[in-house]
Amino acid sequence: MTDLKHIYRDYIDCLNEQAWSNLGTFVADDVTHNGNALGLAGYRKMLQQDYAAIPDLRFNVEIVISEYPYLASRLDFDCSPKGVFLGLPVNGRRVSFHENVFYQFDNNKIVRVRSIIDKAALEAQL
Amino acid sequence: MTDLKHIYRDYIDCLNEQAWSNLGTFVADDVTHNGNALGLAGYRKMLQQDYAAIPDLRFNVEIVISEYPYLASRLDFDCSPKGVFLGLPVNGRRVSFHENVFYQFDNNKIVRVRSIIDKAALEAQL
Repeated sequence: MTDLKHIYRDYIDCLNEQAWSNLGTFVADDVTHNGNALGLAGYRKMLQQDYAAIPDLRFNVEIVISEYPYLASRLDFDCSPKGVFLGLPVNGRRVSFHENVFYQFDNNKIVRVRSIIDKAALEAQL
Repeated sequence: MTDLKHIYRDYIDCLNEQAWSNLGTFVADDVTHNGNALGLAGYRKMLQQDYAAIPDLRFNVEIVISEYPYLASRLDFDCSPKGVFLGLPVNGRRVSFHENVFYQFDNNKIVRVRSIIDKAALEAQL
């Protein structure tokens, strides 16, 4: 069995380096995100838009556990979204929030993402 | 190593049966929930208030994985909160949403809970 956590750490490095041409090493062509069939191209676009909206975005892994074919991660963000983020007028303020996310792997690539961002925590900071 | 998933399934049964006198079998005296030092009594009170606000509340486990001392669960809810829920005027409408939650165990009891409920999904249904 492949070590999903090792793959995941490399995936997070890929995001933080914005090494978009490598994304397909970690993400399947038919990836879905919260039920949306984005595919690899759509997933890359979503991430690029995240970086455009949050120039100082950085993915910090607080907890990661795995049990094939799943990996669960708690991500910690401390960043300054430029305008409206998750429907909230953040407007460049520095905010801290978490994301709890389950990844499902197939052939060592992420094929299904079930993510929840702590919007209530964000609201409490505005 | 104890099977955290087995303990967790019994914990979820305890919640769904509202067997509050058994809660201390699964939850530590000094439990924290999203950084709040509720303690066992406060945690029980939080759950009782959840059931008062959502009479048809039921915890459904969609995904559960564990790696000692952590367990991650994706819970699926399909219920009818009576009034304002998470700051939203649900007012008895039937809604579906998820919770992604990490539990940290100590001595086979839940000692730290890091929970995120998908408030954005709820908003989209109102």
